[in-house]
Amino acid sequence: MTANRPDNPAAASSDRLAALRAALAEAGLTGFIVPHADEHQSEYLPPSAERLKWLTGFTGSAGTAIVLADTAAIFVDGRYTLQVRAEIDEAVFTPLNVADNPPTKWLAARLKAGERIGYDPWLTTMSGARRFAETCRAAAADLVAVGENPIDKLWRDRPDPPLGAVSLHGIEFAGEAAADKIARLRDAIADKKADAAVLTQADSIAWTFNLRGDDVAHNPAPLAFAVLPADGKPTLFVDGRKLSNTVRVAIAGLAEIDEPAALSERLNALGEGKARVLLDPHTTAEAIAEAIRAAGGTIVEGSDPASLPKAKKNSTELAGARRAHVRDGAAVVRFLAWLDGAAPAGTIDEIAAADRLAEFRAETALRDGSELIDLSFGTISGAGPNGAIVHYQATPATARTLAPDTLYLVDSGAQYRDGTTDITRTVAIGRPSTEMRDRFTRVLKGHIAIATAVFPVGTTGAQLDSLARVSLWRAGLDYDHGTGHGVGSFLSVHEGPVRISKLGTVALEPGMIVSNEPGYYKAGEYGIRIENLVVVTPSEKVAGGERDLLAFETLTLAPIDRRLIDKALMTAEETAWLDAYHARIAPAIAHLLDDNERAWLTAATQPL
Amino acid sequence: MTANRPDNPAAASSDRLAALRAALAEAGLTGFIVPHADEHQSEYLPPSAERLKWLTGFTGSAGTAIVLADTAAIFVDGRYTLQVRAEIDEAVFTPLNVADNPPTKWLAARLKAGERIGYDPWLTTMSGARRFAETCRAAAADLVAVGENPIDKLWRDRPDPPLGAVSLHGIEFAGEAAADKIARLRDAIADKKADAAVLTQADSIAWTFNLRGDDVAHNPAPLAFAVLPADGKPTLFVDGRKLSNTVRVAIAGLAEIDEPAALSERLNALGEGKARVLLDPHTTAEAIAEAIRAAGGTIVEGSDPASLPKAKKNSTELAGARRAHVRDGAAVVRFLAWLDGAAPAGTIDEIAAADRLAEFRAETALRDGSELIDLSFGTISGAGPNGAIVHYQATPATARTLAPDTLYLVDSGAQYRDGTTDITRTVAIGRPSTEMRDRFTRVLKGHIAIATAVFPVGTTGAQLDSLARVSLWRAGLDYDHGTGHGVGSFLSVHEGPVRISKLGTVALEPGMIVSNEPGYYKAGEYGIRIENLVVVTPSEKVAGGERDLLAFETLTLAPIDRRLIDKALMTAEETAWLDAYHARIAPAIAHLLDDNERAWLTAATQPL
Repeated sequence: MTANRPDNPAAASSDRLAALRAALAEAGLTGFIVPHADEHQSEYLPPSAERLKWLTGFTGSAGTAIVLADTAAIFVDGRYTLQVRAEIDEAVFTPLNVADNPPTKWLAARLKAGERIGYDPWLTTMSGARRFAETCRAAAADLVAVGENPIDKLWRDRPDPPLGAVSLHGIEFAGEAAADKIARLRDAIADKKADAAVLTQADSIAWTFNLRGDDVAHNPAPLAFAVLPADGKPTLFVDGRKLSNTVRVAIAGLAEIDEPAALSERLNALGEGKARVLLDPHTTAEAIAEAIRAAGGTIVEGSDPASLPKAKKNSTELAGARRAHVRDGAAVVRFLAWLDGAAPAGTIDEIAAADRLAEFRAETALRDGSELIDLSFGTISGAGPNGAIVHYQATPATARTLAPDTLYLVDSGAQYRDGTTDITRTVAIGRPSTEMRDRFTRVLKGHIAIATAVFPVGTTGAQLDSLARVSLWRAGLDYDHGTGHGVGSFLSVHEGPVRISKLGTVALEPGMIVSNEPGYYKAGEYGIRIENLVVVTPSEKVAGGERDLLAFETLTLAPIDRRLIDKALMTAEETAWLDAYHARIAPAIAHLLDDNERAWLTAATQPL
Repeated sequence: MTANRPDNPAAASSDRLAALRAALAEAGLTGFIVPHADEHQSEYLPPSAERLKWLTGFTGSAGTAIVLADTAAIFVDGRYTLQVRAEIDEAVFTPLNVADNPPTKWLAARLKAGERIGYDPWLTTMSGARRFAETCRAAAADLVAVGENPIDKLWRDRPDPPLGAVSLHGIEFAGEAAADKIARLRDAIADKKADAAVLTQADSIAWTFNLRGDDVAHNPAPLAFAVLPADGKPTLFVDGRKLSNTVRVAIAGLAEIDEPAALSERLNALGEGKARVLLDPHTTAEAIAEAIRAAGGTIVEGSDPASLPKAKKNSTELAGARRAHVRDGAAVVRFLAWLDGAAPAGTIDEIAAADRLAEFRAETALRDGSELIDLSFGTISGAGPNGAIVHYQATPATARTLAPDTLYLVDSGAQYRDGTTDITRTVAIGRPSTEMRDRFTRVLKGHIAIATAVFPVGTTGAQLDSLARVSLWRAGLDYDHGTGHGVGSFLSVHEGPVRISKLGTVALEPGMIVSNEPGYYKAGEYGIRIENLVVVTPSEKVAGGERDLLAFETLTLAPIDRRLIDKALMTAEETAWLDAYHARIAPAIAHLLDDNERAWLTAATQPL
């Protein structure tokens, strides 16, 4: 309880927008772009970077507002089209779905010759700035980089940037010394004929230097920048107040340490030295590229050199992931056993269920001699129709009770020192309908198609994505999200560059951990998703086979609700996979369960 | 028989290269790029554009040579890596596979600062020129557009450009009047906020104006250019000697007619008028873009506006395709029946077989009251190990006899006025091995997976490609080509923009005709490919389905060799598809067969 008036950005957005427009007019700008972003293109922002929320009230993890003199719109993806309407004042901002109305298209239709659209080059990637610049150029308008973000001048009680303590990620978890990683990156930078690279993504820096942090929720990567020369010592630009003496000494063995404010000077020096600097145009702030260019340097565009090495987990990280999944699977099994007992009373709501699951995770970690550091994202706890909202976040106003004869979808994950988890289970509360069982079984067939896929080295996620959809397609159904995303090692739960989706152009390589999460959503009725994490592994050579093959090993250990499966739709091979998967669970996790939980697990993992 | 010494470019390539280098030195150039291309980016070139063949001896349909002062290389794709070595003098040109050694990478490794690399901007697309320019810029070298191609000055007996007669493609085949097509394209050009478009691809022009031609082998599109203003009459730039009075009158109702040499002046006028001109960067010669830019115009980059409309066949074109496939299927059945009788004697070689197939096509077309205009490509007739060479073209030196206990692969197609066909059958000569039957059945399972696929509107070819591969992947096998390509309507047998392959980013739409041709190739032993043409069709709504679905209807009508199928590997659904497919054939084509052929067909299409 607090006596302060809570901040209510939606109610304030009319005033804030008016103030912003006045500031823009004073600066000679006719519009301004407000992305959900910080200088590191983080998915989870520190409160100090929540400018989009301050202006509009929208709290989702992705979105962009554009303010023009007489109109303003906010663009969100399919996950947030319902949420955005609930959070913003539609009289002030028009909510639009980016799939139908990309910001550039909307802007192109409204821009007049001579207009000056402002943007913050620290919050916009090189490729994003290029797209907006092209849009403006086509309309004979200008895209103008602002020196200081006008929102920061108006936002009086803006929080300070976070000062989460930086910690060392020991070799027993990382599996490779930071010095060795840095040497690998140096080679990659030299291969690109670049003199240096600038790392701007928090998780790339965390991985490279074997550091973790506590700046933002759910993602244990410290906010920092790094410059890596092809020859010589790297520099880590990090607020000194985040570093204990011990951590400082450890970093000093690897890198120079400087304040983030010193980065601009360093970029300038690189430019003046005519350096060729490797930058990832999809993740690097345009301000960084422009500083180097303006001082005379050359940009070499290429992917973040840490991105692919980070995605390929080494044997220590994989062993950690397996330990984390034993503990996490046990926590989920305890939760599911509790839920089966508690839900029929009709008193559990979505928030209570999510809270109970978090408690099980914390308790089970202690029971395992470990520690739950954080959840890896805000739990998606969706009862009945709320399960159909893909990125649903329950609030007291929306939370439903888990009612009889409905489905309950729970998508959750944890950050442990040895690994990051992400699991979705869909559970029958009471008696499921025939349709629910049909849909669940089709989603399961898609899940199994990925779990059992074997594919040649070089295959991309885009090539596998449709295997998860064929069973749904046959019934005239589909889902509007990718089938899988990369997952970090005690890092981001959404980690690039690999994914299983139409857009997954990166080849799958051994050690990559990705999610396998097909779904089906019936708006207003129920949602289904079945998600395990899998790791890419070399597959045994087939007799007579000519190609080196890869396959997936499933890491997640928790039963899939047998009550929702229509066995008649399953092939013998699919049933065999499910039975074998279920048979793996008890031997791995039973030591973390009590007798009742063990009995529940035995019943839940009977052969189909 | 001719008394002239036959041209032997491979033997002459050393002298020719020396002469070219001398000409380059005189022009102040240190290198030159020689693509397999004409001004229209045709796949099949007129003899006058065979500069790559003149210089190197290479006769394949795709490739590029780069000549530097002290080295020269020719870059070909996987289809041609064997052929190129047989055709060129390796002491003069180093043959390289583009997959491992793209020309830009090879050039980047050899370029020195200050070098000047020449290229012919009429033979290089805008995007191709951009790639080479970036490569040169990175090395502080220059990419220089030549005014006249230096090869043309050296090539003394260069043939004149072709003067194939232009004919009208009647509404009974085209299904849509040219005036209506032009009106549609005008709208598309205006939608792009462009003032005009330049069409440079022969098949786009043929489709737009309902014309056909006789300039190059296999592709009945006349070589021409067109300028389409968003408002006003188009201009067709075509050599007047190709036009009969009748054809000229018909075109004059739609367009101004001018000589190809007048195009440059028109581009200049567009530029001086500050026009915004729509050009497809992937198919338009850089010379066209540069002429417009240099005169002050603006390039609007976008796909050829005829490309997508042309790909979506209308009901008249589809009816024509079905008629063409009845006739073509009958010809192939007659060939297969003849082959089964003739091959065991061991006297038929690849060339004789291909010739006999062409005769059956010509005869059967007459029997059907139609006419075989041309083959749609050079028949691929591969016995035993030659079947493993994906784009094999038999020559007297390479042609093998169809020997007992081998496989014979024949990929062929025809141009009829009402449609273009393309079919591959793999036939057992004698007794196939267990391995051959296993491989053939896996390829067939992939073929059936595409034939029976149902998928939501918006699905791309890239999303379907892997369905054709899963059965092979499980056995550690794969094939190194796409699963399908677009096919024109009495036009190119390889037609953009749709394809079923990793690179197929265009959504499949009703009316598109594509090939379905998975394969398997065992180098040095045998090749397998099963190819039918299919047309994208709306699929019936499934009860409870939510998405609009599409599916494929198979057009090709010829049996798939039952002797090569291992029924134990087939699912019940797969066998049902094959039996149903086979049952369609005789009712459709039997009227074009004699009694022996009908009896053969009855046996060949028995249920499995």
